Amino acid sequence: MTITVLRLGHRPGRDVRMTTHCALVSRALGAKEIIYSGERDSGIEESVSKVVKNWGGKFKISYEKNFRRVITDWKSTSVHLTIYGLPIQKQMSKIRKHKNLLVVVGGEKVPGEVYQVADYNIAVSSQPHSEIGALAVFLHEYSKGKELYKNFPGAKLKVIPQERGKKTVKK
Amino acid sequence: MTITVLRLGHRPGRDVRMTTHCALVSRALGAKEIIYSGERDSGIEESVSKVVKNWGGKFKISYEKNFRRVITDWKSTSVHLTIYGLPIQKQMSKIRKHKNLLVVVGGEKVPGEVYQVADYNIAVSSQPHSEIGALAVFLHEYSKGKELYKNFPGAKLKVIPQERGKKTVKK
Repeated sequence: MTITVLRLGHRPGRDVRMTTHCALVSRALGAKEIIYSGERDSGIEESVSKVVKNWGGKFKISYEKNFRRVITDWKSTSVHLTIYGLPIQKQMSKIRKHKNLLVVVGGEKVPGEVYQVADYNIAVSSQPHSEIGALAVFLHEYSKGKELYKNFPGAKLKVIPQERGKKTVKK
Repeated sequence: MTITVLRLGHRPGRDVRMTTHCALVSRALGAKEIIYSGERDSGIEESVSKVVKNWGGKFKISYEKNFRRVITDWKSTSVHLTIYGLPIQKQMSKIRKHKNLLVVVGGEKVPGEVYQVADYNIAVSSQPHSEIGALAVFLHEYSKGKELYKNFPGAKLKVIPQERGKKTVKK
């Protein structure tokens, strides 16, 4: 079972933190890769790669101009997260049967064709909120919480959970 | 059972979208209120209030300079979300016994005293990611997914979930 995230419509400057958070949520909650579209931004690629280098695992980030092709060429199932889609709580048991998911999250304006080419359009609540929040809940639900036990081999930095205060170990 | 979110360290300009997403995730996933600290930002308050006016419910946003007092004056239980805390998956059944939660989410730098004054320091994964993502998963777990069925009375705008495309109704 693998998950790839496709982030649409990145704009350097304006979207740096949003796209970085999408990437880091993807990595932390079990995706193996994020592909972003929109405008290329080497700063984002470097900062995500730096997190991977320090915190371990094999998460990858890459740019693809043609987002349509990423979705239409996808060999397995694609899920577009959108406020307009069907409720996650009614669709998840069906979606969980599919392995090798492509999870598509929008930027400011999502082209109408994305709703047509994705296999599923899924809403994490039908209220306006956040693509980062929606992605986090989706990944958590898809993996039934098991993603929280994921290991990140080769980490140079690791948190030792504490009741109070901060503790990290460096290797 | 009510949830109030406290967002620390807001900086106008730089944090506008992050804090707005924190507020909208809070509203969509069942919190009744967000209090933000850092610098006051009337733009954020207006945009969140506009969402409430259009999309319904009674969610509130307010500013409080003294975040310490919000936490220490809190009559019930406070939960600080941090990468350094104890794993959510091991603490949630205990936290769920508490009603009227204050959920504290950091900005760029969280003062050390927050770790001391909060009742719980909780990690949604011990990997670096996103306060928005962590907040979303926490709210979803706390309410066991029931928050996705929440009603927002008085809405002028409502999404009618679709398999493909977008449908909203206006009242």
